[in-house]
Amino acid sequence: MSTPIKIAITPGEPAGIGPDLIIKLAQETWQAQLVVFADGDMLKARASALGLPLTLIEYDTNNPQIQAAGSLFIKQIDKSVEVTPGTLDSENGLYVVETLRQACQANMDGDFDAVVTGPVHKGIINKAGVSFSGHTEFFAYQSNTIDVVMLLATEGLNVALATTHIPLEYVAKAITRERLHKVIHIINTDLKLKFGIKEPHIYVCGLNPHAGEDGHIGTEEIHTIIPALNELRDEGLNITGPLPADTIFQPKYLENADVVLAMYHDQGLPVLKYKGFGASVNITLGLPFVRTSVDHGTALDLAGTGEADAGSFRKALEKAIELAHHQQ
Amino acid sequence: MSTPIKIAITPGEPAGIGPDLIIKLAQETWQAQLVVFADGDMLKARASALGLPLTLIEYDTNNPQIQAAGSLFIKQIDKSVEVTPGTLDSENGLYVVETLRQACQANMDGDFDAVVTGPVHKGIINKAGVSFSGHTEFFAYQSNTIDVVMLLATEGLNVALATTHIPLEYVAKAITRERLHKVIHIINTDLKLKFGIKEPHIYVCGLNPHAGEDGHIGTEEIHTIIPALNELRDEGLNITGPLPADTIFQPKYLENADVVLAMYHDQGLPVLKYKGFGASVNITLGLPFVRTSVDHGTALDLAGTGEADAGSFRKALEKAIELAHHQQ
Repeated sequence: MSTPIKIAITPGEPAGIGPDLIIKLAQETWQAQLVVFADGDMLKARASALGLPLTLIEYDTNNPQIQAAGSLFIKQIDKSVEVTPGTLDSENGLYVVETLRQACQANMDGDFDAVVTGPVHKGIINKAGVSFSGHTEFFAYQSNTIDVVMLLATEGLNVALATTHIPLEYVAKAITRERLHKVIHIINTDLKLKFGIKEPHIYVCGLNPHAGEDGHIGTEEIHTIIPALNELRDEGLNITGPLPADTIFQPKYLENADVVLAMYHDQGLPVLKYKGFGASVNITLGLPFVRTSVDHGTALDLAGTGEADAGSFRKALEKAIELAHHQQ
Repeated sequence: MSTPIKIAITPGEPAGIGPDLIIKLAQETWQAQLVVFADGDMLKARASALGLPLTLIEYDTNNPQIQAAGSLFIKQIDKSVEVTPGTLDSENGLYVVETLRQACQANMDGDFDAVVTGPVHKGIINKAGVSFSGHTEFFAYQSNTIDVVMLLATEGLNVALATTHIPLEYVAKAITRERLHKVIHIINTDLKLKFGIKEPHIYVCGLNPHAGEDGHIGTEEIHTIIPALNELRDEGLNITGPLPADTIFQPKYLENADVVLAMYHDQGLPVLKYKGFGASVNITLGLPFVRTSVDHGTALDLAGTGEADAGSFRKALEKAIELAHHQQ
């Protein structure tokens, strides 16, 4: 028997829906060993609130079994204080960060094939005294990675972003040749290594409406984007674009595109979220391990109710297993 | 018998696919009198190239008939030189502008219920010595209208734009309280008058990713957009937002939205075009008459071949007839 894929899972904010979702998904059989980095008592209490069975098996590096439906492997990390679903408590902020730190380290050490992250609440972690601007930045820092790229995936469409969570007014200045080189190299490398695509075909949006219309609506395409893409083509990369963002998402292009690179957040993600119907996955490219994540927040009001939709967490888990297979 | 709806149609650039598309559509029976403002010989020659029958009936204000399939009413405007499908000729630039001018005037005079425009080629009109930046601006100027709003429509979704064809770097500065007031008033008024919606429900996107996330990713929502929307709500307008652009296009919002106002071109149109599969309609709000348009260009390489897809022109014509009914 071959060793099964091993996935590290961080449920994220314990007062949010992260624990609910992984408990829901644990009711099925998965073709991977799922190891939750969390507090076992908190998970048992949440399972009880949801009326779902949950057996926790202590994680053992030497045990290659896949857990049965209704059970999960656990890497115990003690919470600081009791958790009330729906109520944030900064006392547990350090606990959340510790689950991320250990899951990251375990992946860095090569003990795991991927990490899947549930939603955290940035505000409460910062209130706990830890400077924290997001999972992506945290994992990059912990793994000594300088540049990472955010990619959102749904059935039939991958969208990567050249800039992410910055004010719109700074986007045009942030699009430089250097950035495009870095971002596209990371995408190209990770689509090969992690997605198993031999020659990734990368479609690139322009920055301006109609991709600048030959300079009539902005000149960044002429001065920055087109030269950068030509340089990358000279290196042998398979790139199409820049194309207008309102024509690039057509079947005739998407059939051939392994990824669409949008220049900024709201240029690429509305289509992806619309197409994905709330079941898209966030994948961090550039890290030395596979990391996928849900694309939603903590939804505190739904925690413990059983009403939370596991669609995105399911996709994140499925995608992590799929990508992990390419690593083996 | 009641007077039929009367639609003025400008095929646009004669060397492009505009003439082809209206000839294709004329093969059906329409519940409206379709009057083409164009050169009859050019249309006959194109019909012949396409192998389609075409009878042209001289337009007569006092004739309330609907044309039979295979025929069109024509308001003759002489072309300057012969037309070769696929080959632009600046000698016909003035002719194109004259078709627009007469169609606009006929609508201003109240002889028509709407105008539907095919694609023009801005470059060749400018080469002809006429300063021309687009249909919308031309009609606004001709009708003494100061402010107009571009709205794109497809089945189940209307998207209006607060800014249109400007470089991305200027978008943030262009979003002012005054502009939002003007744009939203025009939308509200025209959805009532032209679309026949009693209390339009307007959904508004933020400018920044996540609609600024409480000021963490840009402050325009806090300083400009939220105050402007609150002022408009105080006037009694029915407004929801600002909402993040990557969550606003969900069924739960779209069910209630008569229109989604995007802050800029590539925030709103990629979803609309994706959803519409190339069959969206451009509608100009704020003009003293109904104007719809195709959402594509002249596609010179397809002119005269019969290969051009009439989907968008069909939608533009259907939408014009639908909106015209609300005016009666």
